[in-house]
Amino acid sequence: MPPKLMIPGPVDVEAAVLDMLAEPVQAHYGDEWVAIHNETLELLRQVFVTEGRVYMLPGSGSLAADAVIHSMFKPGDRIALGINGFFGIRWREIIEANGMTPVVIETPLDQPLDPAAFDRLLAEDPSIAGVAAVQLETSTALLNPIRAIAQVTRKHDKLFVVDAVSGLAGAEYRMDEWGVDATVSGSQKGLGGVAGIGLAALNDRAWAAVEQAGPARSWYLDLRRWEWYVQNWADWHPFPITMPCSVILALRVALQSLLAEGLDNRLRRCETLAQRLRAGLVEIGMELFIPETLMSPVLTAAYCPPGAKSADVVRFVAEQHNIKITAGFGAVKDQVVRIGHMGAMISENDIDRLLDALRHFVDEYAAQAARPDEG
Amino acid sequence: MPPKLMIPGPVDVEAAVLDMLAEPVQAHYGDEWVAIHNETLELLRQVFVTEGRVYMLPGSGSLAADAVIHSMFKPGDRIALGINGFFGIRWREIIEANGMTPVVIETPLDQPLDPAAFDRLLAEDPSIAGVAAVQLETSTALLNPIRAIAQVTRKHDKLFVVDAVSGLAGAEYRMDEWGVDATVSGSQKGLGGVAGIGLAALNDRAWAAVEQAGPARSWYLDLRRWEWYVQNWADWHPFPITMPCSVILALRVALQSLLAEGLDNRLRRCETLAQRLRAGLVEIGMELFIPETLMSPVLTAAYCPPGAKSADVVRFVAEQHNIKITAGFGAVKDQVVRIGHMGAMISENDIDRLLDALRHFVDEYAAQAARPDEG
Repeated sequence: MPPKLMIPGPVDVEAAVLDMLAEPVQAHYGDEWVAIHNETLELLRQVFVTEGRVYMLPGSGSLAADAVIHSMFKPGDRIALGINGFFGIRWREIIEANGMTPVVIETPLDQPLDPAAFDRLLAEDPSIAGVAAVQLETSTALLNPIRAIAQVTRKHDKLFVVDAVSGLAGAEYRMDEWGVDATVSGSQKGLGGVAGIGLAALNDRAWAAVEQAGPARSWYLDLRRWEWYVQNWADWHPFPITMPCSVILALRVALQSLLAEGLDNRLRRCETLAQRLRAGLVEIGMELFIPETLMSPVLTAAYCPPGAKSADVVRFVAEQHNIKITAGFGAVKDQVVRIGHMGAMISENDIDRLLDALRHFVDEYAAQAARPDEG
Repeated sequence: MPPKLMIPGPVDVEAAVLDMLAEPVQAHYGDEWVAIHNETLELLRQVFVTEGRVYMLPGSGSLAADAVIHSMFKPGDRIALGINGFFGIRWREIIEANGMTPVVIETPLDQPLDPAAFDRLLAEDPSIAGVAAVQLETSTALLNPIRAIAQVTRKHDKLFVVDAVSGLAGAEYRMDEWGVDATVSGSQKGLGGVAGIGLAALNDRAWAAVEQAGPARSWYLDLRRWEWYVQNWADWHPFPITMPCSVILALRVALQSLLAEGLDNRLRRCETLAQRLRAGLVEIGMELFIPETLMSPVLTAAYCPPGAKSADVVRFVAEQHNIKITAGFGAVKDQVVRIGHMGAMISENDIDRLLDALRHFVDEYAAQAARPDEG
């Protein structure tokens, strides 16, 4: 029996997704494939809630982030960047690797980014070209106030780029309505596909920036090349490379299932599961890492039972209960565990099984701690 | 029934590969995954016939080419480039997109690159930093003389970078012995996996160039980043991103099967099938596009039956016989068809079925051509 995945992605995928992966290989060109490709893009637009351009970029979420930064900005550009965890730091690496300068607004791991701080920075420094932030900071389960940061960014007429890799289809996200200019995500988290596709969604403002961004510094990361194929090879092969058809077909099935359930219904389901899990954790004595109001509906970070280390908790629930959770990140790595409940495949029963496993851990741990006194 | 794929990739994959794709999702970190990852790299080294570094780069073969050019050379570098087809032109795009200058040695579509021309160019122009060429030019089925170009390149102490995307495991290729410094390939052709992974193999000379190549211009394409994770996250996550585990597991199964058959045995099998196909084509009156001695063992390009167009031939064998072949490229697109016979899944029976289909086409075509006279 493979372990139940309750990590922050990849997620267990539905049987129909696995079945699709086992279908014979298809060619990545011609009428039939173009129809599948375009339908998948249309489903993705519904999930990003955008009417903008969407690209499926074989690779990963970070590849999509790299492509968006590479394509929308120029070397030397200054980009305001919110950092309150590992994936904020990832944005910094990507911005710097592209020869741009991140202007960092840092907040502690357990506090959301502050839209007012972005407002002040953008008012003080008109040289800043854009703003980057992470929606769900996977390293802490914290959900940043993307909508409010988008408002501030738009007020200053700057470009806003969001990492929604782990949050998309798990927390409310309305790209066009909120005024986010570009969003990156991946196939293997809330969308319920398997890993292998980075996603980039760009509105017309973002696209105008791409068109003005000067010479590319890469072949693959240049979104103008992807768009050229959309425009010029539309009927045959609307992308520049061999697409991983199996992974895209799997993603399409997952998206169809997600949209059949309904995006809002999925989000509500995630919230209900999150509440059940968090109430149980508190009962067990596992304090939440951040207040529930700051936490995303699809990922929970909680302190270990008093005295215990995250590695021990993770190993125990894996070995004794066949459930995979993971440790915290950065300074709280040893004290915190992270529990993913994203995607279609988490049920109340899974939540209860995990809570039983954690209760079991607490009992065993207490018994072990008691043992020296018995001797 | 899905069509039998006899295109230049992707290939039909073995049942065991599809079965593996249908296995539950795995996490991309921890002991178990690191062991799978490292084993897959070891199998790949056997196929590249190298003891160098190998990277699995989620994306495509062109992504791997982009990463190698980006990482080994500096903007402004001059790179001697052989072009005799579409994928030579792809190298040019990649070199130019990275801000480098291709110094092109072009030969006609039906003629192999000339090692002596590289020798003269490298003797005349010591400013050239490296040489790039395509092994199997997928657009024409032509196999370029990589071994001889490697000798010339090494003689001038330059770096040699080879696109072996469609030729690897289909035509002899011995990276270390031949003195190729970097090779790029993909998962979905001769290796017998599904699409989704670009591969890059680098020897120590290539790696020394990477270390001296100055600042990166991208996050994802910088091979130093990939190597940093190999060195520093070896036990947990020896790569910077979420890997497409399903695709890698499928590739591992395909590589295990390939190496169980034996690389040399596979190549001999491909040659036998190629001879059978080509003898049959000539018998039907479909002249080979280039002499058999120039053609790769895994791809055949042939002129259509006199008077017929490639689109008609391709459609006929698809609709009437459920076999997918494809048209030629560039100037000979309408006159030439290309027939792939790479990977593990092509049998004598498939070759014979295709020949029957083509005979059937010739008969029907002759009958149709005769009809106006009957009127």
